[in-house]
Amino acid sequence: MKIELICTGSELLTGRVNTNAAYIGSRLLALGFELYSVTDVWDREHDLLCAFKRAFKRSEAIIVTGGLGPTFDDITVEIAAKCLRLKLYTNKKVLKSIKDYFLSRKVDLIPKINAKQANIIDGAKVLENRLGTAPGQMLRFEFKDGKTKHKKTLFLLPGPPKEMSSIFESEVVPFFKNCVVGIKKVVGIRKNEVLHIFGISESAVAEMIRPVLEEAKFGVCKSVEFGIIANASIVDLKFSVSGTNENLVSETIKSLRSRFDDILKDYIFGANNDTLASVVGRLLLENRKTISLAESCTGGKIAAMVTDIQGSSLYFKNSIVAYSNESKIKFLEVKKETLMKFGAVSPETAEEMAKGVLKLSGSDYAFSVTGIAGPDGGTKEKPVGLVYVGFSDQTKTKSFKFNFTGERNDIRERSANTVLDLLRKKLISLKANDH
Amino acid sequence: MKIELICTGSELLTGRVNTNAAYIGSRLLALGFELYSVTDVWDREHDLLCAFKRAFKRSEAIIVTGGLGPTFDDITVEIAAKCLRLKLYTNKKVLKSIKDYFLSRKVDLIPKINAKQANIIDGAKVLENRLGTAPGQMLRFEFKDGKTKHKKTLFLLPGPPKEMSSIFESEVVPFFKNCVVGIKKVVGIRKNEVLHIFGISESAVAEMIRPVLEEAKFGVCKSVEFGIIANASIVDLKFSVSGTNENLVSETIKSLRSRFDDILKDYIFGANNDTLASVVGRLLLENRKTISLAESCTGGKIAAMVTDIQGSSLYFKNSIVAYSNESKIKFLEVKKETLMKFGAVSPETAEEMAKGVLKLSGSDYAFSVTGIAGPDGGTKEKPVGLVYVGFSDQTKTKSFKFNFTGERNDIRERSANTVLDLLRKKLISLKANDH
Repeated sequence: MKIELICTGSELLTGRVNTNAAYIGSRLLALGFELYSVTDVWDREHDLLCAFKRAFKRSEAIIVTGGLGPTFDDITVEIAAKCLRLKLYTNKKVLKSIKDYFLSRKVDLIPKINAKQANIIDGAKVLENRLGTAPGQMLRFEFKDGKTKHKKTLFLLPGPPKEMSSIFESEVVPFFKNCVVGIKKVVGIRKNEVLHIFGISESAVAEMIRPVLEEAKFGVCKSVEFGIIANASIVDLKFSVSGTNENLVSETIKSLRSRFDDILKDYIFGANNDTLASVVGRLLLENRKTISLAESCTGGKIAAMVTDIQGSSLYFKNSIVAYSNESKIKFLEVKKETLMKFGAVSPETAEEMAKGVLKLSGSDYAFSVTGIAGPDGGTKEKPVGLVYVGFSDQTKTKSFKFNFTGERNDIRERSANTVLDLLRKKLISLKANDH
Repeated sequence: MKIELICTGSELLTGRVNTNAAYIGSRLLALGFELYSVTDVWDREHDLLCAFKRAFKRSEAIIVTGGLGPTFDDITVEIAAKCLRLKLYTNKKVLKSIKDYFLSRKVDLIPKINAKQANIIDGAKVLENRLGTAPGQMLRFEFKDGKTKHKKTLFLLPGPPKEMSSIFESEVVPFFKNCVVGIKKVVGIRKNEVLHIFGISESAVAEMIRPVLEEAKFGVCKSVEFGIIANASIVDLKFSVSGTNENLVSETIKSLRSRFDDILKDYIFGANNDTLASVVGRLLLENRKTISLAESCTGGKIAAMVTDIQGSSLYFKNSIVAYSNESKIKFLEVKKETLMKFGAVSPETAEEMAKGVLKLSGSDYAFSVTGIAGPDGGTKEKPVGLVYVGFSDQTKTKSFKFNFTGERNDIRERSANTVLDLLRKKLISLKANDH
């Protein structure tokens, strides 16, 4: 089934990151489908018409995001109707729900412009929007290509990511789940997995797994595909298997996973929706350990990552973001002499920071980071990218030295990931010693 | 000039956010150009060929990102050459620079697979990559459409964002700057501005500025375009003006800006590349004030935003990310009784947190945040989304109450933006009182 996504909005062509495409791509993948292409277009009549015409011709399911809002540049519904030569009508139920939405927010009068959002394409199903005023629409239509007719499905979804994903989950996912049942019988099924890897380069991963890729060419499944992609310091290894025999597909996925586990060992920190912070969180819970942090160059980034995970209050105590020397002394009990003698970016300071926060917060483990994120502040002895990580628990305190490359944000991100990965390895070794 | 972008890589269709498109779109805009469309395609021969053929036909400049890497799924160069019926050759200078790159990283042997990155399209200019092994390529070619020939330009850039942007700045930007000189004479110039707005909804902004939009229709410039887009709690208002008379275009931009300033007043926190954190940073420097934070539900997010700005050590002292009650007592001197009597999420606790961190860090201002980010932890009296912000300076301490809607991450982000915006307004009022 050919599925394509059209994202409309001038912002996507002028600097705004398209997170809807990422969301929809990953969700379709999880359902066993592949997004064939993503097109970002301007919210201008001509551009939208061209994109719609091409999509209606070549794809069986077309998802459009954006342009359902109340403002003058929201023209998706009009243009879709025009392209399919269908009429629009004002849906009274939708109009009422828009009124209710504003009432619930204690606004008595609907802004005039919002009424336009009750315009529905003739024959379309209204997809309720619980988080905003723009409903989605789903339309099944026939497309004539020469003499043959093709059944196609069009989804119009709002652009704001939360509204889009809410409607996507409640209305679009069930549609594709139903499709799976029909498709399975004909072309078989497809399964995917993504492994997340830290601490090794993209090229190195590619070289290490080459034998597996070679073998896969001669495997039993109809098609095995691989992809490797690096994002800052994290490498993702994706593989997908399709075939008509579900058991065989599952077993192939399983055996590939176990081969990769053997080769890449604990460079692999997780799979699919895992993040370093979610994996670390799970391990802390399992081991009933708590953590505290003392951050200098990462400036709160690690704490923000850890607390992004719901329920993190069960294992996260605190982070002291001590940017100034003064704060390191006051909040972390780093000695003034240590700072004077060795400097803020030194193994000695890193260790005292970790020790200090461990003692004061009473956590089981503490990590600290101090480094030079740049672009200024580097010297010959202590260049930009020099980062010390301190670790402390009830029995010992130590530090690790790193020389990271890249720009300010790379260095901060790599430092944060490094701390989380060190913690992960610490927790895994605990578990190994248990057995 | 029709410019389009093709981004290749399976990751873009399966869940990875495309930041390259955002970067290139915003940079072209700044140069006075418009990206006509963005297409994300799989790194598969057939899909890439289709995308290239369409782009070579319809656009004058085609930028491709991704697929220049060393691994098996990197096929951009091959397919581009195939599409244009050109040959590839091994460029010795590039091969040497790949060797040097690995030597500089203390790797003696080039991984075999990296040698492929020295394959250059016949006639292409090599675009040096200072941050990685994959060089970019620029090719000027003639495209025959029926009997007429069109001169076109193709850029192949690496996928990793840092490498892409580095080559984009050094090699692609000068190309477009040169084009500007030629184009200006014929079709005139184009200028853009984006205003960033906080504290008011997208619909409200649209209603408020409607009179300006109506007037603009009858203005003197050839074309004035507007766009409004909301992202979480921040609304962007974009406007662009084009015409043949540069002075007129500049004046129209200026007068629009001043109209918007009058209407939206200090809801506008910045323009173009400004962020709340960069604006606040600038104001803190100008006013020679320092800041400290006490974060509970934002978990370090505010500190991470503030320290994303280079030079923030001049005005940022520290943030105490006190997630547990214990930490609030130990690091912020919040009274145990306050926590017992009013709870962690209360105006009293917010105020003590702000007061505590102000006193201990010795900063001029302190802000605190405590709230329920969810999805768990809400009660009838204190629902998910309830957030208190505390403020303290040498003269007073107070608190603000908010009821935010949305999911965990929305609430955290909105809380963080709210604190930065409160600080911004505080600093602006200082400035106003000066005069």
